[in-house]
Amino acid sequence: MAVAELWSKSIDIPRAVRWHDDAVRIIDQTLLPAEYKEVDLVEVDELIEAIRSLRVRGAPAIGIAGAMGLVTSLKKQVEGSGSEFRARLADHAERVRLARPTGANLAWAVNRLLAVADQMAEASNSDLWEAMRREATAILEEDREMCRRIGEHGLALLHDESTVLTHCNAGALATAGIGTALAPIYLAAERGMKVRVLSTETRPLLQGSRLTAWELSRAGVDVTVLTDSAAAAAMARLAVDLVIVGADRIVANGDVANKIGTYGLAVAARHHGIPFYVAAPSSTFDFTRASGDEIPIEDRDGDEVRRGFGRQTAPDDVPVFGAAFDVTPAKLVAGIITERGIFVPGEFAELRQA
Amino acid sequence: MAVAELWSKSIDIPRAVRWHDDAVRIIDQTLLPAEYKEVDLVEVDELIEAIRSLRVRGAPAIGIAGAMGLVTSLKKQVEGSGSEFRARLADHAERVRLARPTGANLAWAVNRLLAVADQMAEASNSDLWEAMRREATAILEEDREMCRRIGEHGLALLHDESTVLTHCNAGALATAGIGTALAPIYLAAERGMKVRVLSTETRPLLQGSRLTAWELSRAGVDVTVLTDSAAAAAMARLAVDLVIVGADRIVANGDVANKIGTYGLAVAARHHGIPFYVAAPSSTFDFTRASGDEIPIEDRDGDEVRRGFGRQTAPDDVPVFGAAFDVTPAKLVAGIITERGIFVPGEFAELRQA
Repeated sequence: MAVAELWSKSIDIPRAVRWHDDAVRIIDQTLLPAEYKEVDLVEVDELIEAIRSLRVRGAPAIGIAGAMGLVTSLKKQVEGSGSEFRARLADHAERVRLARPTGANLAWAVNRLLAVADQMAEASNSDLWEAMRREATAILEEDREMCRRIGEHGLALLHDESTVLTHCNAGALATAGIGTALAPIYLAAERGMKVRVLSTETRPLLQGSRLTAWELSRAGVDVTVLTDSAAAAAMARLAVDLVIVGADRIVANGDVANKIGTYGLAVAARHHGIPFYVAAPSSTFDFTRASGDEIPIEDRDGDEVRRGFGRQTAPDDVPVFGAAFDVTPAKLVAGIITERGIFVPGEFAELRQA
Repeated sequence: MAVAELWSKSIDIPRAVRWHDDAVRIIDQTLLPAEYKEVDLVEVDELIEAIRSLRVRGAPAIGIAGAMGLVTSLKKQVEGSGSEFRARLADHAERVRLARPTGANLAWAVNRLLAVADQMAEASNSDLWEAMRREATAILEEDREMCRRIGEHGLALLHDESTVLTHCNAGALATAGIGTALAPIYLAAERGMKVRVLSTETRPLLQGSRLTAWELSRAGVDVTVLTDSAAAAAMARLAVDLVIVGADRIVANGDVANKIGTYGLAVAARHHGIPFYVAAPSSTFDFTRASGDEIPIEDRDGDEVRRGFGRQTAPDDVPVFGAAFDVTPAKLVAGIITERGIFVPGEFAELRQA
């Protein structure tokens, strides 16, 4: 399938990560929705800063940008010795991999490039660099295809006039393609179905109100924003048909790490009898960890809460519970929508064989 | 009991509403925690603006400020004719009562002044005004006493090292006294008990991080702020012993209207087996309404979410689900802590007889 076909023809969907010559072109997501600005990343420090400060974010997009940026950051090293080049590769790979700890895709994408290097132990720097660039491009294109396939599988869960509640941003801005949680919604919109989306704003960084509402409304999808704490009331008062969220890491027993607040939505959905789905490419699965207890949870700086918007929103000296992610136990998850179908937690045998 | 004894001797607790000569002195809560500023309200329009814009907020404090401000706003009318004075009273009373629709206390407090006027149908303007001022002062002093009694009843639910999760601000800043939900915590602190408080920030207006964290930390109480969406994760990861929140209106079957997000906390608390308590004076009860379905829910301007902090945090044209309150069904409430004891929803016979 050609890449062009993986993109929407009829709906204007943003491109969060792509090549611009040999640089990684991203949309600076910290500026949305007030300003749309593209940024080209070349140096490894630029890449790491962009990932840490969430200029590029979303587990799949981080993985893709990480792989592409790792390649980009090594271009100038091609002229040096082979041992220098490989030492620099190992160093950059390690630093990029550690830029954010919770998402599975970043390490997975970096490891794919390292595997290429391992297979090409005797190759010249320039042959290895070209092969790594092809691998990074393959990761990018596979992501676009995965997004569309996730959308196709998820579409079966929607009908005309469905109301979907989502959290954070697992849309085009979180991937190289049409998103994960939002992919079924974009495909429904392409087919002329009316789907209503409720987007929680997602404190502290407001990816829901800043990003999900932005990309859906510019694509013409009916989207309403609500504070995170209003989700339970929305489930009680509005006719929410299902919840679809993304995932940063899914472990062997089906426990799901995702943006803080996901777990509370899953609890509220269960209370209201609303099915709770997770949409994620299979690269999000981490079968090396048995349960959610083993997932590393990133704690972010308390100032994101105390001074979130350039204003003082809490006393300076007050401590903050700053977990950036939470773990939703598998028992609250109706299904995981992947590019290979919808899987019930615990029934991952087919995915493990990949 | 003298008023002085109702106040804390050992802990510095702010005074949200009090007389300053014949003006209503409030703390402008829109400026906290960055700035502490007291404002004197005299005219009825100032009072209504202060209530609408949440310079004074919290159901009990709104009732007290409403009653006191109604008196203040009529002082200049004392010189006019009796019919003019009473017409102005009726007009101001109606406007003040409608300043915010959800809390029960505002109408209750205004009605107490109107009842004084009814009983004094033949009195002079100045006698009536003085009697209304005494009634407003009585409401103020009763609130201080109610807060302390709520604290004493609620104290039975706490032990040394208890962790209490609360939402919004049902503290000193929401009353004329030491608060409702926070009253047991202040009394515990007075007795030297170590109580840890988790304060959800409470979007969109952040009463939890701006106000609850401010008043507790300046009183030396151990308080940690968390985003609203982190509450469920906190219940799963931290040892939360109980939830205590305030209430804006409690109806005959025990359903509770309170700040948006309360319902989601109650659902999450139930999921984790954590008891969920509501603290409120008996003036919050509305036995004229059978169930939560009959409670009017205020919808606030979507710009509180789209442009909450002087920054654009959602696209301008995106609709917002702006319910300011939600309804927690009685079945999720372990007990309602009042100045007359802790009541189980549905067992309100003793309160009804008041």
